[in-house]
Amino acid sequence: MKKESLVAPNKSEPEELALERHAQYRGKIEIGLKAPVQSYDDFAVWYTPGVAVPSRAIKNSRERVFEYTNKGNSVAIVTDGTRVLGLGNVGPEAALPVMEGKAMLFKYLGGVDAFPLCLATTDAEEIINAVKWLSPGFGGVNLEDIESPKCYYILERLQAELPELGVPVWHDDQQGTALVILAGLLNALKVVGKRLSEVTVALVGAGAANICVAKYLRVAGAKWGNLVVVDSRGILNREREDVRGRGEERAGERAGESGESGESGESGESGDKSKWEICEKTNKEGRSGGIKEAMRGADVCVALSTPGPGVIKKEWVEGMADDAVVFACANPVPEIWPGEAKEAGARIVATGRSDFENQVNNSLGFPAVFRGALDVRATCITDEMCLAAANAIAKYAEEEGKGKGLSEGYIIPGMDESEMYVREAVAVGMTAQGQGAAKIGISADELEKKARERIFRIKSR
Amino acid sequence: MKKESLVAPNKSEPEELALERHAQYRGKIEIGLKAPVQSYDDFAVWYTPGVAVPSRAIKNSRERVFEYTNKGNSVAIVTDGTRVLGLGNVGPEAALPVMEGKAMLFKYLGGVDAFPLCLATTDAEEIINAVKWLSPGFGGVNLEDIESPKCYYILERLQAELPELGVPVWHDDQQGTALVILAGLLNALKVVGKRLSEVTVALVGAGAANICVAKYLRVAGAKWGNLVVVDSRGILNREREDVRGRGEERAGERAGESGESGESGESGESGDKSKWEICEKTNKEGRSGGIKEAMRGADVCVALSTPGPGVIKKEWVEGMADDAVVFACANPVPEIWPGEAKEAGARIVATGRSDFENQVNNSLGFPAVFRGALDVRATCITDEMCLAAANAIAKYAEEEGKGKGLSEGYIIPGMDESEMYVREAVAVGMTAQGQGAAKIGISADELEKKARERIFRIKSR
Repeated sequence: MKKESLVAPNKSEPEELALERHAQYRGKIEIGLKAPVQSYDDFAVWYTPGVAVPSRAIKNSRERVFEYTNKGNSVAIVTDGTRVLGLGNVGPEAALPVMEGKAMLFKYLGGVDAFPLCLATTDAEEIINAVKWLSPGFGGVNLEDIESPKCYYILERLQAELPELGVPVWHDDQQGTALVILAGLLNALKVVGKRLSEVTVALVGAGAANICVAKYLRVAGAKWGNLVVVDSRGILNREREDVRGRGEERAGERAGESGESGESGESGESGDKSKWEICEKTNKEGRSGGIKEAMRGADVCVALSTPGPGVIKKEWVEGMADDAVVFACANPVPEIWPGEAKEAGARIVATGRSDFENQVNNSLGFPAVFRGALDVRATCITDEMCLAAANAIAKYAEEEGKGKGLSEGYIIPGMDESEMYVREAVAVGMTAQGQGAAKIGISADELEKKARERIFRIKSR
Repeated sequence: MKKESLVAPNKSEPEELALERHAQYRGKIEIGLKAPVQSYDDFAVWYTPGVAVPSRAIKNSRERVFEYTNKGNSVAIVTDGTRVLGLGNVGPEAALPVMEGKAMLFKYLGGVDAFPLCLATTDAEEIINAVKWLSPGFGGVNLEDIESPKCYYILERLQAELPELGVPVWHDDQQGTALVILAGLLNALKVVGKRLSEVTVALVGAGAANICVAKYLRVAGAKWGNLVVVDSRGILNREREDVRGRGEERAGERAGESGESGESGESGESGDKSKWEICEKTNKEGRSGGIKEAMRGADVCVALSTPGPGVIKKEWVEGMADDAVVFACANPVPEIWPGEAKEAGARIVATGRSDFENQVNNSLGFPAVFRGALDVRATCITDEMCLAAANAIAKYAEEEGKGKGLSEGYIIPGMDESEMYVREAVAVGMTAQGQGAAKIGISADELEKKARERIFRIKSR
């Protein structure tokens, strides 16, 4: 483990600066005035007596709340603080600086007004109730850093009760992470000249994000049987009685046999119905063993497990197929350092870090997905909308990205490629319309104009 | 009633403009960046990996959330939309433009970051739960436009559970309104040369606000027996069996005999334990009858009832004592037009409207009360803190206000007298410290400097 400092980059400043800067500013977001106050008389329009007029109009026709308030640009960032970054269950207060950072990214990258709501409950039913009660003021809900398996249940319940909520809900650690990884993978495969429908993929880690990656890979064209997923107890296969038991139990709960969510002390890679589905459908060779066995001969490895280095060994990368692609996405330290993976023969390596090439960064997803969803007043965020986002990201990198074409070192845009967010938002909004998931009908051109205006507004200040 | 247009001022513009302007801006508040983003690299400090450091620090010592986040300047504006302005039960969506306006005022007048949370539940227990779950991210909670009698119960429960919440809670329609009225009354009595301990006061309306006015009047020195309160069924006295029944019932609930809050279809002037206390302790003459009888011979009338005109008749003002003071505070139209009241002999008239002199405006209260409470990290907002706020407002008008001394037409500062907010915040903060209700010890000078900085920050942009 002492190798770390040799391979690790020389940038420890962010961590060193963080405490000082956070103490200096005491918060990263604040309330701004969207409408002007030029004189105290303006409050007669913005507050009493004037405000009674829009208020009455909304009372008579609820949908007009989008016309007269900021609901249509507001997203609730909801967390219970049970799985924050690589820190685990730190509680709602300690989650707040992270959620404020997320709100900053929402605004800066997507022009979305997102507000952190860090809940003092970890009970799934209570979180669901809180989101439902809070929904009138928001145009969307971003669930964040909620531990699994609870997060699946919460998301599924809220998605099912969407008609009642009227606002799209997603869990960024599932859909958000997965769509960005998919975008990177689509381009990586173009560079190495392989087809998604033919590659074998080892997925290391079976938390919320990687389970969703598996799902998206399949929807995008990969074969279930060609995926091999490993959790902390080994490869998922039909012999995994531990997963079968929990999966069936949770399936029962969801069907309403129990009103309780079964708040669970488990975290990270815990069992779930989705996970049992993975056991049943993936891994057609019936492999067993650990990460090593899962990676043997694989074209691609997507690791979203525990911080490294040393979680994935150099020899295991050596055992992969030619032109191997390795996504080592644990934060803050990847499962294997990129240098090591390259030495072991990986042709393309991606991580979650900004200090290496090919950063797969959630920030490429959520700001534009919500931008697009809000601008067409989407009632949900479908898998198809997420795939459209992934394709838009991939296409932008290929055709217009600053890499001037794809290469081993450029498979995905950087956060600074603002125009990408516009394209992605349009792709999401148009897909929502195509699926009948949007309440507003708007042309691609108009949508693009609006999205660009909103995304670039804060940067031009 | 056709007199209305004659006496009413010629300002219908705010209402006319309101719909147009609200549609133009689509929301009055937005998320702003409190900390700077100069380059994309800054996100490594504000988000991953840097943010893990403050997050971990807060996990180890929860109180440090005030050091590294905006919690210490954040207030949740919580409503269920059951009693919005003069509009009644309009629901959470229709309440949103009002709450956004409130958030604007919080920021513009007090430098406080307040965020509207309009809840899709009207159940008292659920509202209480929502506030408790939301508390980790906020430094204070402002309950708003929640119908009575539920609002008493919610406030009392939340105040009782303060140690658990760690944040001050108040209901602006009770404490906020009452403290501003008290400020105005203190000065009105100076102008007419009467003493609070000697005056008789008719209180028209027995909703949340006026019940609190009665309480504050008493704490400030008025005699219980000299108050006469009227609700929609007449004067409150010991014969009011309708109130006695409900009061005792609710007292039982509060003592825990029932876990349910008894969500009630009643609104406005409904019964409550506080109201039964009023029946027992006020009105030493044992008056009965209606508004007319309550006002007969009174030195002061404070009306917080239903929109007029015509709710209070000219003849009833004529029946008051010499140098009568009339506060007709219903919105949007006072119980009696100021011109009529003056013609009938009132020496001082105050209303809730900005287009007449002596506006008693909640906006003089809540921004500075929360400014002061937040800056000393108060754990609650006590009656004494509210009285200190009222005294500070009154003193400012008398000694430094733009009226250059008190007069019939200037008993209370206007919203534009920004320095008043500074004094008021300091008074609140110092009182909190004196009562042991503050977690931070800070001198009056320092507190004043901080408050001034924060209050004037947004105006200087």
